[in-house]
Amino acid sequence: MSTPPAFDPKAFRAALGSFATGVTVITASAPDGTPVGLTVNSFNSVSLDPPMVLWSLSKKAMSLPLFKATPHWTVHVLSAEQEQLSNRFARAGEDKFAGVEFETSRHGVPMLKGCAARFQCRTSFQYEGGDHIIFVGEVMDFEQSSQAPLVFHAGRYALATQKEPALPKTSSARLSESFSQDFLGYLLGRAHFQFYRPLRDLVRAQGLSDAQWYVLATLTLKDGLTADELDQAIGYSLEQPSAPLLSGLVDCDWLLRRERADGATQFNLSESGRNRSLHLLAAAKSIEADTLSRMGYADAAALKTLLQRLATHIAHESPDLWTDAQG
Amino acid sequence: MSTPPAFDPKAFRAALGSFATGVTVITASAPDGTPVGLTVNSFNSVSLDPPMVLWSLSKKAMSLPLFKATPHWTVHVLSAEQEQLSNRFARAGEDKFAGVEFETSRHGVPMLKGCAARFQCRTSFQYEGGDHIIFVGEVMDFEQSSQAPLVFHAGRYALATQKEPALPKTSSARLSESFSQDFLGYLLGRAHFQFYRPLRDLVRAQGLSDAQWYVLATLTLKDGLTADELDQAIGYSLEQPSAPLLSGLVDCDWLLRRERADGATQFNLSESGRNRSLHLLAAAKSIEADTLSRMGYADAAALKTLLQRLATHIAHESPDLWTDAQG
Repeated sequence: MSTPPAFDPKAFRAALGSFATGVTVITASAPDGTPVGLTVNSFNSVSLDPPMVLWSLSKKAMSLPLFKATPHWTVHVLSAEQEQLSNRFARAGEDKFAGVEFETSRHGVPMLKGCAARFQCRTSFQYEGGDHIIFVGEVMDFEQSSQAPLVFHAGRYALATQKEPALPKTSSARLSESFSQDFLGYLLGRAHFQFYRPLRDLVRAQGLSDAQWYVLATLTLKDGLTADELDQAIGYSLEQPSAPLLSGLVDCDWLLRRERADGATQFNLSESGRNRSLHLLAAAKSIEADTLSRMGYADAAALKTLLQRLATHIAHESPDLWTDAQG
Repeated sequence: MSTPPAFDPKAFRAALGSFATGVTVITASAPDGTPVGLTVNSFNSVSLDPPMVLWSLSKKAMSLPLFKATPHWTVHVLSAEQEQLSNRFARAGEDKFAGVEFETSRHGVPMLKGCAARFQCRTSFQYEGGDHIIFVGEVMDFEQSSQAPLVFHAGRYALATQKEPALPKTSSARLSESFSQDFLGYLLGRAHFQFYRPLRDLVRAQGLSDAQWYVLATLTLKDGLTADELDQAIGYSLEQPSAPLLSGLVDCDWLLRRERADGATQFNLSESGRNRSLHLLAAAKSIEADTLSRMGYADAAALKTLLQRLATHIAHESPDLWTDAQG
């Protein structure tokens, strides 16, 4: 009865991974003063009064004797921007602190900077926990800065997006509201148009159509493309850079038409065209930077990731579906 | 030396909240067979061999005597879609299981359905942990289904969006790639155009412009609007429903022009117009449903949330900024 059933350790590890956690780096100081630290996600809160937290350390860990002996250690809750720090302290190695900015607590514990929270602890209990030791520490001091957290789930890093309270779905008067909050097509269109609007005003002021601006932005990044290549490059939009559109840009001294060695015609930005395009691109980036700073790092990164992922899912669509949708 | 400094319990709780966690419901059975359960986020893994997990329970919890006495309990890791279940089991009350589907384990423990993972445990240790008791259990059996997790951070629910590995930023040949992966304006435009493209084909097949379709979709949700009201309703897009656009829809029997009591002219869908609009809307919803099912619940919900949040941030823009961006 006391023998556990035959476990698939890989499946067990995967099942444990379904519980999302934050990521911490826990540091201490060796007797000779050498800073020691490791990445830990088995951290959690235990008690409010007295304030206590816990974490588990493998009995095989090289740093186990140190943590069994030292009374003082600090838990650093990592922010979404500290993925590299997490990787660094998760690897075995001697030089984890090389190039890492840290200060030293009055108990000699290395204190990393830029974290979402720090808890300076003193060991209260060390408990038996199978192949791990559970360290319970009393929190002597703590700090917090309101930063987005680094999340770990299913063996990978993730970003947390705060959920909005669900809409009441009872009243039919809410139909249009629910549509405008729930329908992805609407939300995408609105976000695109709203985001693009200020830039569009600048584009129009230069006498350009949207498609012409897409062509110029593309050539700013990679100059010297043919009409076909431009078609492909901005093919995500609904418009194609037809010959008149390109001719118009040549006529207004944005583009130069050149003959390639292989006989194909390519388009290059003129000097004036490049300057004016870079000016627009700088405006676009300034608009973007301002919006992203309002959203915050994690939400902005998550939004970009999800838009990329959406594009992948759409690109995999079979054309048959659209036919079916009409029938 | 052994007295902790004066703690602000609220600040301490907030600092603890900066560590993201999953959400679990832990269940057991009272001696009389009554099912018992509570929401817990102090869960974590401890040991792989033997397989062990832990969680903490307040010494003031009504269910403490039960969990101290019973050897068997089950941890349910909640999925992103189980927020209601989390709320239900977080509240004190007698009828937590009312209307909740569950089965019963061979040890009599209630087992909830639809979770991301379940761990059937037997208590190995009960440890002192300040105002909580730490329960360490050996995992006797477990299941997992690959579902997006419910996340808890800073006192609120959140969704986890898996991070993509960072792009290498060394090669300048990667500039255009980095632009197309990093620039929000590009990602929004591409997502919008790609998502809308199949619907646009259907819209064009009906002889409609994009702006005309926006007008019809708006009237499907709320019929009988004036030209001004329609301008406002689809004002997020770059086009405005000018008089000729509306006249065109009247001429083709999509809309009826009606005189209001106050003398204003309003537009209503004709019967045929409503039928054809609903047909297009159904196609749009089918396209959306297909795409969202490919993304999965959590990514889809996070994307919608972030697009709404983006719109809020853009709407708060001061017009001055756009002027500055040009200069």
